This record gives sequence, C-alpha cells and structure tokens, in this order.
Amino acid sequence: MLAEEIKNYDIKQLKELAEILRGQIVERVRENGGHLSSNLGAVEITLALHKVFSFPGDKLIFDVGHQSYAHKLLTGRDLSRLRQEGGESGFPDPEESAYDPFIAGHSGTSVALGIGLCNARDLAGGKEKVICLIGDASLGNGVALESVFSSEKKPENFVVVLNDNGMSIAKNNSALYRAISKATAKKRYRKFNSFLSKTFKETSAFGRYLRKVKYSVKGWLNKNAFFERCGFKYVGPVNGHDLSELCAVLENIRAIERPVLLHVVTQKGKGYAPAEEDPSRYHGVGKNFSESKNSFSDALGKLLCERAAADGRIAAVTAAMTDGVGLSEFAEKFPERFFETGISESYAVAMAAGMAKGGMRPVVCLYSTFLQRAYDQIVHDVCISSLPVLFCVDRAGFVGADGKTHQGLFDVSFLRGIPNLDVYAPKDCAELADLFDFAMERGRPAAIRYPNGYAKNLGCVRRISENCLWEIVSPGDGVAVLASGARAVARALEAKKLVSPLDPMIVNCRTVSPLDEKLLKEIAGRQIVAFEEGYESGGFGGAVAEFYADNALPVRLKIMGAPKKFVAHAGAEEQAQACRLTAGDLALKIRALFAREQ
Amino acid sequence: MLAEEIKNYDIKQLKELAEILRGQIVERVRENGGHLSSNLGAVEITLALHKVFSFPGDKLIFDVGHQSYAHKLLTGRDLSRLRQEGGESGFPDPEESAYDPFIAGHSGTSVALGIGLCNARDLAGGKEKVICLIGDASLGNGVALESVFSSEKKPENFVVVLNDNGMSIAKNNSALYRAISKATAKKRYRKFNSFLSKTFKETSAFGRYLRKVKYSVKGWLNKNAFFERCGFKYVGPVNGHDLSELCAVLENIRAIERPVLLHVVTQKGKGYAPAEEDPSRYHGVGKNFSESKNSFSDALGKLLCERAAADGRIAAVTAAMTDGVGLSEFAEKFPERFFETGISESYAVAMAAGMAKGGMRPVVCLYSTFLQRAYDQIVHDVCISSLPVLFCVDRAGFVGADGKTHQGLFDVSFLRGIPNLDVYAPKDCAELADLFDFAMERGRPAAIRYPNGYAKNLGCVRRISENCLWEIVSPGDGVAVLASGARAVARALEAKKLVSPLDPMIVNCRTVSPLDEKLLKEIAGRQIVAFEEGYESGGFGGAVAEFYADNALPVRLKIMGAPKKFVAHAGAEEQAQACRLTAGDLALKIRALFAREQ
Repeated sequence: MLAEEIKNYDIKQLKELAEILRGQIVERVRENGGHLSSNLGAVEITLALHKVFSFPGDKLIFDVGHQSYAHKLLTGRDLSRLRQEGGESGFPDPEESAYDPFIAGHSGTSVALGIGLCNARDLAGGKEKVICLIGDASLGNGVALESVFSSEKKPENFVVVLNDNGMSIAKNNSALYRAISKATAKKRYRKFNSFLSKTFKETSAFGRYLRKVKYSVKGWLNKNAFFERCGFKYVGPVNGHDLSELCAVLENIRAIERPVLLHVVTQKGKGYAPAEEDPSRYHGVGKNFSESKNSFSDALGKLLCERAAADGRIAAVTAAMTDGVGLSEFAEKFPERFFETGISESYAVAMAAGMAKGGMRPVVCLYSTFLQRAYDQIVHDVCISSLPVLFCVDRAGFVGADGKTHQGLFDVSFLRGIPNLDVYAPKDCAELADLFDFAMERGRPAAIRYPNGYAKNLGCVRRISENCLWEIVSPGDGVAVLASGARAVARALEAKKLVSPLDPMIVNCRTVSPLDEKLLKEIAGRQIVAFEEGYESGGFGGAVAEFYADNALPVRLKIMGAPKKFVAHAGAEEQAQACRLTAGDLALKIRALFAREQ
Repeated sequence: MLAEEIKNYDIKQLKELAEILRGQIVERVRENGGHLSSNLGAVEITLALHKVFSFPGDKLIFDVGHQSYAHKLLTGRDLSRLRQEGGESGFPDPEESAYDPFIAGHSGTSVALGIGLCNARDLAGGKEKVICLIGDASLGNGVALESVFSSEKKPENFVVVLNDNGMSIAKNNSALYRAISKATAKKRYRKFNSFLSKTFKETSAFGRYLRKVKYSVKGWLNKNAFFERCGFKYVGPVNGHDLSELCAVLENIRAIERPVLLHVVTQKGKGYAPAEEDPSRYHGVGKNFSESKNSFSDALGKLLCERAAADGRIAAVTAAMTDGVGLSEFAEKFPERFFETGISESYAVAMAAGMAKGGMRPVVCLYSTFLQRAYDQIVHDVCISSLPVLFCVDRAGFVGADGKTHQGLFDVSFLRGIPNLDVYAPKDCAELADLFDFAMERGRPAAIRYPNGYAKNLGCVRRISENCLWEIVSPGDGVAVLASGARAVARALEAKKLVSPLDPMIVNCRTVSPLDEKLLKEIAGRQIVAFEEGYESGGFGGAVAEFYADNALPVRLKIMGAPKKFVAHAGAEEQAQACRLTAGDLALKIRALFAREQ
C-alpha cells in the first residue's frame, strides 16, 4: 500500500507522488463528480502526515471529509467508482477502511471526536497520536468552538492541523479568522523568516538547524496567541504545499507530547488552474466538472428575489451554502437583506428568530441534513414564540452521491411534531411559490421541504388555500395514494399509468402539518398508501396513522417511506430503488391492494 | 411601574432599592422555589440597565433567563406565584410582558437573537439599543460562540453585557475563561485603577472625570483583547455590584453607537449568605430552599458508580448539569472517567462518540430538553457508525415549574426514528438498572428516558431480555393499555384500580424502539390505548400505529400523549391534568373503550 511505501520516499519522490495524486484526483472527479478544490489543496499535508505518522495505529480524523481523497488513494482506494453505488464514499467511512476512524460529512466535530479518542487512549495507557485535520471555515462551527474552548487542558499526543485555505477570507468578515490572523501574523517573525529562507538552503544541515530556531522564535512570538490560550502549543503558519517544511515540522511535532495546533496555509484547487481561479465553482462538481442543476433551488432563488422586491420585510439567511440553496442572485441584489453566517446553522436560525421578532420575514435556506443542527433553535427560539420564520429545506429526500451523512430523510419526523410549525412539501416549483406565499400569509413558523435535482411542473388542479390543503391531482376509485413531496407525487402519477386500467386516486399532500383532515375523513375506509421520501418512523405516514387513530376511524393504511437504516452513496434514483420507493414499487403495492379489495 | 420611577432615583435610592429587590427575590424563591444565586447576582446590573436605558423601547434580552427576577420585579411582576400554574414564569416570556422580547431557557442564544433584532432595526432605520445580558458560562456554548465569531462586524447600538460570575472558574479549566481573563487582567491597569480609587472619591467631579480617563486607559491597554477582535469595543471589567460605577459606565455606553461588550464581575448569591457560600446549592431550589429529590437521577448516579467500579470502560459525560443528573458522587469517585464540558451539549456527545470508538462505554447524561441541542451529533457522529454510546435522558416528560422551555416531551419523537438507536423507558429505578445493563450488553447506541421527581418501585414481573422486551405488569381482558415510561405505567396501574371490576391489560412498554412485535401481534384486534408523557405527534403511539399499518393488522388504537402545544410552568401533575394524561383521564378512556366492546 502506498501509505506504507512512502515511509521510504525522500522529499523528491514525495513531490512526484503529490503530482500523481493530484492528477488522479482531477481524473476521478472528472469521471465521477465529487469535491475538487479542497481535495487538491490537501494533497501535500496528507502526504506529509502519512510520511511522518503511522496510520492506522496513529489516528487521522478528517473534519467534514471532503479533503480525504488523497488519503483514500494512499490507503488502497483507487476512487474509480467514487460516490457511485457500491464504490468509494466521498467522505471517510470506517466501513470502507481501517484508516478512517470516523464517518464525517458535517463540519466541526473532528476536534471533539479526537479528544474523545485521546480520552479513551489515555485511560488505556496508549501512546498513539491522534490527529485532526480541520479547515478554517469548519473551525467557526459551534461544535468545533465548544471543543476548542471547553477546557484549557487538551490531551497529550493530540495534534490539530488547521488547514487554512482562506475560505473564511472569502467570507471576508469572520471574527474568528481575524483572531487567528492577529495571533499569528507577526511582522517581525515574517522578516526573520524571510531573511533565513533567503540566506540558507533549507535542505542543508544548518538550514535544518535554523528551522528549529525559527520555530522556537515563532513559538515565543506567539506565546500569547489564540490557540495557546486554548491549551495548544501553536506551530505555524507553515506553507501547506511545501513538503519539505511540512515533513520537518511534523517530525518535530511527533517528538513532543504536548498538544499541538499546526497552522498550515494552503490553496484551494492547488495545481488545477480552473479550480485555483474559482475554487467555489469547483468545490463540489458533477461528472465532467458539470455544475449541478437544481430546479427547486433555482426556483427558490428567483422567487425570493421577486418577493423581496415587493416586500421589504423579506430577508434571506443561510449558512455557508449560498450557491447550493440558490441564493447567489439574491445576495447580489439585496446585500443588506442577505445574511450568511458561515458554517453556523444554530446561529443562523436564532438570528432569524431575532429578525422575525423585529418585524422582518426571514427565510432560512438550509439543506435538510444541516437543518438538524439547529433543531433546538427551531423549537426554543422560533416555535415557542411562534415567530414567522420560514425554513426552506433544500435537499430533502435522497441526496444521491453525498450519501449517508447528507440524506434529507429526517426532517419530516423531527419537524412535524413541533407545535406552531407548519410543514409543507410542494409537488413542483410552481407550487413552491404557492406554498411560500401561503406561509407568508399565515405568518407563523413554517418549513417547506423539497428535493434536489430536476423536477418538471405537474400542473395545478387547485391551488392551496385554508380550505384546500391537499390537492387531488388524479381522481380515482378504490385505493388512495397520499403522496407527499415532489418526487412522491411524480412517482405516484407514474405508478397510476403503470397500473392502468386500475384507477387509484392520487393526492398531493403538500401540507404534512397540518393534515387535510376533511379529505382524510372523506377517504376513510379506503385502502390508503402514504408515500414519501423520508423515514417511515415518525414521518408523514405516521401522521396519517395517528390521525385515523385519534378519530377512531377505520383504517387500512400502508406506509411507504425509507426503512430505518442509513442510505449510502449512489444515485438518488438508485437509493429510491434500494428503499423500494420507485414508481414501480408503488405500482406493485397498488395492484396488491386492489386485489385485496376484490 | 418601578422601571419608570427609578429614572429619577439617585444612586443612594437605587442602592436601597437593590436591597429591597434582593429581599423580595429571597422571599419569593423561599415561597415558590426558583433560581436564587444567579438572580441575586444580577440585581445591580439590572437596576443600572433600567436606570440608564428605556425599555421596552430599548430591548433587554436575557440569556437563559434565570437572572431575570429583578427585571420582572421592576416591570410589574411581583413573583407572588412564581413558577406556579398561572403565575409568573421563571424565565422571560413575551406572553407575560412587553419588556421581554424573547423566551429563553436554554443557553447561548441571546447574542444571535440580539443581532437579529439589530438587523431588523437597522433596516427599519431605528436607533434603539439592543442589550444582551449573558453569563460567562453561557458564552461558552456553541451558539453563543458562533454568534460572537461569525462576523467581525457587529451591529451598532448593540451592547453585550457579560455577567462574569465566575461559574467558569468553578469549572476551573475553561479555555474561554482563560482567553477572556488574559485579555482583561492587565497588571498595570489594576495598579493604576487601585491608585486612582484610593486617591480620589468616586463621587467627586474630578473622580468622575478620572473615571473617563480610566476607561480610556483600559480601552487602550485592551485594544487587542479577545472581544475587540470580535468587533466589540471592550469595556471592563467593572464591579457588577457597584451601582455608581455601573450607571456611569452605562451612560457612556449609551452615548456611543459602536457595539460594546461590557464585562461586569458579579458574585453569585450576592447578599444572601448561604447562597454566597454555596452558589451551586442555591442555583435552583424548591420551596423553602429545599433541594429537589429525584429518584431516577439518584439511582442513575449510584448505578453508574457500581457499574464503573466493575467495568473500566464505563465513563460519564455531562454538560453543566452534574448535580442535576446525579453524577456528583461519580465525579468524586472516578475523576479520570468523568467528563463535564460546560454548556456544550454538542461537544459532549461528539466527544462521547470518540470515546466509544476508542473502546470505552461513555454514558452521556443530559436532560431531555438539552439533549435536543445535540441531535445532529447523535445522528451523525454516534448512530451512523453505531457507536456504543448510552444516553441517559433525564427530565423526560413534564418537568413542572421550569415550564415551556424545559419540557421533556420531544425526545421520543426525535430519537425513535434514528437508525441503530434503541430507545428505552423504565417503569421504575430498579428497571433503570436492568435497561442500563441490557443496553451495555447490546453494545449499540441507546437512550434511556426517565422523568424527574419521585418514583416508587413497582416490582418486577419479568426482566427485560431479547425475548421479553415488554412486560405485562397486569394481565387482563379486553382493552390493552400500552404504557411507556415510569409515570405512564404508574398511572395505568392506578387507572386499573379506578375502573375495577373492568380488567384491562396493563403493559410496561419499556422499549420504545424496538417495539415488542410479538406482543403487539398477540394483542392485535383488541382495543388498545398507547399512553405516554411525550408529544403525540411522532411519539410512542405513532410507533404502534405504524407497526400495525406495516403489518396490515386490524387496529383499534387510541393514542394518549401530550397534544401539540407548548406546556407552561405548573406542577408536573397539573401539567398532566392540563394535557389529559392523568390516571383519571386514562380510566375514563378505558371505560369508554370497554363500553364500545359490548
């Protein structure tokens, strides 16, 4: 395995390997889609870590994990089927390799996980190093900040590598970034460093000696720095693309037991010119570096611009996913009403509650999987006081290639039980606008969930109103299919074609909470299928079941949702197949129920 | 209203009023129970804020809110029925007073809420001041840290008052506290300050002039301090019990537009000797300052000590609620296996995941209402990888006097749908031990939920095992009551007495996930009542409904849980009454169902 072989490599060989890895990453992402910019930036630091430390005895924890491709290539995963069904995950995953202690797709947890590993190791008397690789943007997340600030005593043999690729600079106003920079950018040191570099060759013995002096001086200059106060010996900043410097510094770090924060400065997209020039564009891409098209996000972005032009109370809030949720245009057109918090979902939601209290109508746009990071703020800060915050929950349902950590399958179950909160699911982009307006009129907390990918408009039978919550998109006899969400409704209509001449009723259940009680009562006694892209447990089908139980109505209900297991990377359609939620699966169920009727 | 009158008070009158307020707080808490120490510490700063600013035009936001009693007394709430049904809430609440912009019972959200209010104000062109009062312990919470660090640009006319009562010192190792202290405790300034104070009377005109000089000097000395980097003008530290100094400083702050962080140092329990000496003991107390007795927390604490003595892998993790969850003895006996993170629930859970990965068996003890702050870590860091973390979910169900923000009614609905996670609910303390051992044997993620207050042991018919998940605590014919949780089982047995000679079957549903499918199939066709202290939506009853639907079994099910609304402060039993969840309510339901049978 490469990870073993490189122990014997010299710097020149490592440099050559770096270029090979870089080429492979570009090719694999071109073939499969994936995260490009951050992975290209982390090649040398990954190589240096593998050269100096001994994984998996030592532990390497990736925060988020979209910097882990070089690590995967070094540890026997060729990424030929990256993010494809049955292929390699785009994130670290212990099920894939012993070199990955943790799965990680959200941000900010690596330091906590690492401290936990150290706690266990220290109790067991182990001496292995635990190393976290975290980006500067992730460090601003609440979990990471809690982990850094909770105790000034950090475990020994614990190394946090801060991969500073300037993403917070892109944000341009992070206080954390300012705090870090102030603590590190000492003019005197820079001059000293520059003098040394110019004067002596770094490969000479004296150069190596000087390097040690250099770090002592830096340590002294920075002794009161940000991270020192948090219990770390601060080392850096180090050029994160200079393998020679990286290896030397890491060798020093390996020799000491004190907890260390190593600050490396890298360039996103390093080595692939288009990604260097526009790292955001190449952060996550599809096959052939295509930009993902997303009907709902696009529609939401346009809609928000329109509504904000007409209503000065409307503002948009998001957390480090401006492009993803479709807010780029809004951000440009309404900068004073656009609030981007960095990877701080909890802060985003609590701030939105404050804005709503102040008379605004904040629209919080987050992916379903990240919304769960603000669950407490949704309950405590928004819903108890019934403040009119609208949540636009993007990437609800199967998300495809991002896999287990990113599925949007929980939102219905954790949202629908919250008092004062309405939960909506449009069948198409046109209805997204209707539901948006409906939520604005009602003026209470609401969430609108919709999937990624393409969705065609299905036409409108009857627009939403207080008297018409659900819409019978196709009338019929016998079986009633209660479909909630865009993909579910489209598949239900498709299933109806498949079972022809059987004639099930297809209902677009665009409000998950409240339910359309009148309609539910009307169809009581029918064979009913509740159909959605979300976990069955506690989901939309459960709401229907609870309604009939509460009303002591007879019910013959089949719930079709995702079974209770985590769903790995694959195409979103393949994920639906794996969970038996395709139009075909529904058609089979409808047939079976009609047969039972006779 | 006092808040108006004190505008005309001089410092002497304010000081007299402070003592009166303090006396009232002590008396009202003695009569009703409540939070004592933190409220006593915040009397002068509250008075000074009301003297200098004009609420509710200006906005005063309490973080957590257990410092708000003086504020309540000043704004027309006499606290005579503090925390009683229909009386004053123990926390700020907009439904109670226009002087309370937000409800707040959890920690760390005030800064985000304040920034949100400022955003709305600035767009509307307002000039009112927005002021947050936050404790130093709350500042360490992830939401607060995100709010402080997300942007280096803070709104104008925004004041954060950091009430530094040394609670982080109690923790003794907070890095945040160290960072703040290093940034403020400048020896030179202290000497200068002490010289000035000794030399000039603070009431003299020259003294007032000198005060200005003093703050300029302090500002200069601290210009690179922690909070300056976060976009605040730092002012302090100020003696938080010196009304004269507080008013003078606040007057200065009122005159400037720049965002300010005012650091005041206060003493918890100030003015009431027992609380000064042992502020933790008097943090939250019952009537007559009684300490709350809590069978389950006590039992859990003892159990953990026993099991930890026998099993070196077991560790305890909590977040600023060591006493509350019963871990004081454990912390003393096993300091190396006790991890207390401060108000950092997310960090606590992610760290526990790391410990579990390292071979330990961490037991995370949190109140139900605070567990929801770590929902993402439960899903993402613990359950996807199925790491053996055991969650002991205290204060599940109605919590009584703490009210809306603290109810433990969500946990079943947000936990039971998470793949790989078992959810248990013991009927009594003896069974808590059984379920604890059962969870340890199974070695997968699990949560055990139990209420506060007293619970008597109900005896054991059959202990839990893989083949006997639920327990028929009282056999019977006709109606089957599926009771989940200690209070539900106790009430079900009570209800059975009330309906005698009717003979319902009473089942102790001690596993919410997985369900006892065998037993559910056996009783299919009966009239069934699912009974629990948790929200109906998505709760235990929903799980039962989903099971019967999935298995196409006929079902006549009545779900009895909390209806979908927030439940205000009152006794826990009164809350059960308000939600129609008493033994009497259940008895009525059982009678009605028996009648339907005939």
